[in-house]
Amino acid sequence: MIVAFSGGVGGAKLAAGLATVVKPERLTVVVNVGDDFEHLGLRICPDLDTVMYTLAGLANPTTGWGLAGDTASFMAALKEIGGDTWFHLGDRDLATHVERSRLLAEMSLSEVTLSLCRRLGVRQAVVPVSDEQVRTIVRTTEGPLNFQDYFVRRRCAPSVLGLTFEGADSAAASDGFLQAMCHPQLEAIIFCPSNPHLSIAPMLAISEVRACLNSRRAPLIAVSPIIGGAAVKGPTAKIQKELGLQVSASGVADLYQGLIDGFVLDVQDADLAHTVSVPTLVTQTLMRDRSDRKNLAKSVLEFAASLRTR
Amino acid sequence: MIVAFSGGVGGAKLAAGLATVVKPERLTVVVNVGDDFEHLGLRICPDLDTVMYTLAGLANPTTGWGLAGDTASFMAALKEIGGDTWFHLGDRDLATHVERSRLLAEMSLSEVTLSLCRRLGVRQAVVPVSDEQVRTIVRTTEGPLNFQDYFVRRRCAPSVLGLTFEGADSAAASDGFLQAMCHPQLEAIIFCPSNPHLSIAPMLAISEVRACLNSRRAPLIAVSPIIGGAAVKGPTAKIQKELGLQVSASGVADLYQGLIDGFVLDVQDADLAHTVSVPTLVTQTLMRDRSDRKNLAKSVLEFAASLRTR
Repeated sequence: MIVAFSGGVGGAKLAAGLATVVKPERLTVVVNVGDDFEHLGLRICPDLDTVMYTLAGLANPTTGWGLAGDTASFMAALKEIGGDTWFHLGDRDLATHVERSRLLAEMSLSEVTLSLCRRLGVRQAVVPVSDEQVRTIVRTTEGPLNFQDYFVRRRCAPSVLGLTFEGADSAAASDGFLQAMCHPQLEAIIFCPSNPHLSIAPMLAISEVRACLNSRRAPLIAVSPIIGGAAVKGPTAKIQKELGLQVSASGVADLYQGLIDGFVLDVQDADLAHTVSVPTLVTQTLMRDRSDRKNLAKSVLEFAASLRTR
Repeated sequence: MIVAFSGGVGGAKLAAGLATVVKPERLTVVVNVGDDFEHLGLRICPDLDTVMYTLAGLANPTTGWGLAGDTASFMAALKEIGGDTWFHLGDRDLATHVERSRLLAEMSLSEVTLSLCRRLGVRQAVVPVSDEQVRTIVRTTEGPLNFQDYFVRRRCAPSVLGLTFEGADSAAASDGFLQAMCHPQLEAIIFCPSNPHLSIAPMLAISEVRACLNSRRAPLIAVSPIIGGAAVKGPTAKIQKELGLQVSASGVADLYQGLIDGFVLDVQDADLAHTVSVPTLVTQTLMRDRSDRKNLAKSVLEFAASLRTR
């Protein structure tokens, strides 16, 4: 069993790579819910959707989020009648939010996700890290902002002072997460190249998740989302800087110090490997196509195997 | 001031005709809310939408409901993920339902409707008959059915035993309705050619509406939705038959006996005029195009004027 922690686009790409080299029943992708929010009366779970769509091969290849070939009639009409259009919802994508919102009245987010995955042809386990509400609040120089207000509405412009994960203290980990972590053949736990502050930290803030990781029976490996001092996508580098942290793969490794057993850096950052206090793998981490995803997945799994036999 | 009572498609056509011959500030269209329902977490008001879209010149000319040129990406995606697709929602139309549902948390249905109308460029007053919930329940040989379950999901197949309008007893009439009825220059009250059982009756079931009509200071005229023994659209004829009523314009006039001051029949039904106990107007009531709508509107207003001077 391989357990991969993922946020949105970057994490989903490695999850999709893992899905090509691991049997479906052997992969559990644990997904951040700190970005989830209520919008236009709908429950929107951006990271779960991105992971589902990417694993289903349906993700928009240009944006990384949303559905390939989706249309925007709904948004155009909503704009005309003066609705809230700061968060884009494609016509087909909207069906996911409407159906999820409807199903959530009857079942847990884990069950809803399973149902949606089955319909989309995703055979891997995609599990929200918790079925309870965990909400990322970004403390900024302009005051606290709900995650999507910071991320989408304000386009990450305000300077970050810190992050709060509302509900994380009392949230239980999901059954799917616990089952995967307790699996007798657990071979590796992987932090995909997701934003450590916005995607991984909200999951680690859940005490049951942290406890499970602390008593893990398989190596925990993090893949750096920073390559050559810049984030492949999103505000990781900007936030690292604003929090006074090093904007580099080393800076990311520092964040995970004491938790991880191995760290994966890009070939561009080979000279930083010696700064990391755990075993490292230097490989190409940039995933431009399916082949890159598969190669990175293979390398990370081989690295995990090598750590198990040490 | 002209007050027109309307259900969906047929009623909206005459309302649109009236809008071409009466100044915008002189027309109030009072709309049935008995068809309204909650679906996929959204408040859907089919009659209000049809009236708004028709007055805005945006209605789908083929169906009479929905938006011209709307797309169906949302429905296609919803079907793929196993959602409820028995009630069609176009991509652009969906924006209306989402925005209405959002606004209803902050304001009344009348205020939401005014806001949507302004955005769609509708200058006439379109007012729900009540801001409170009135729900049409169709009592059938297969048990009681919520209106849309009967009308759309079951396509009016079950035999009708009777109708119940839940909430009508305690519902207040909307301010817009009351203001129009109290207008010092009220000239005519018109029951558009809508289904008397499903569109007009739910409005008449509200005691305040009935009281206002009973103390009216202008002639009340009904336009028959049945022409030549058949309904132009919808189940009016089928329901008349199932309730043991005459399937004819006379049968409709009988329903309104004691309430109306004048009745409008189609030229096809000229021979039935003598069966009606109030003054009648025989004219072309079938509205195939804009010109038909305008002509009928003119004729009905002239008929009302003649009744005022009698």
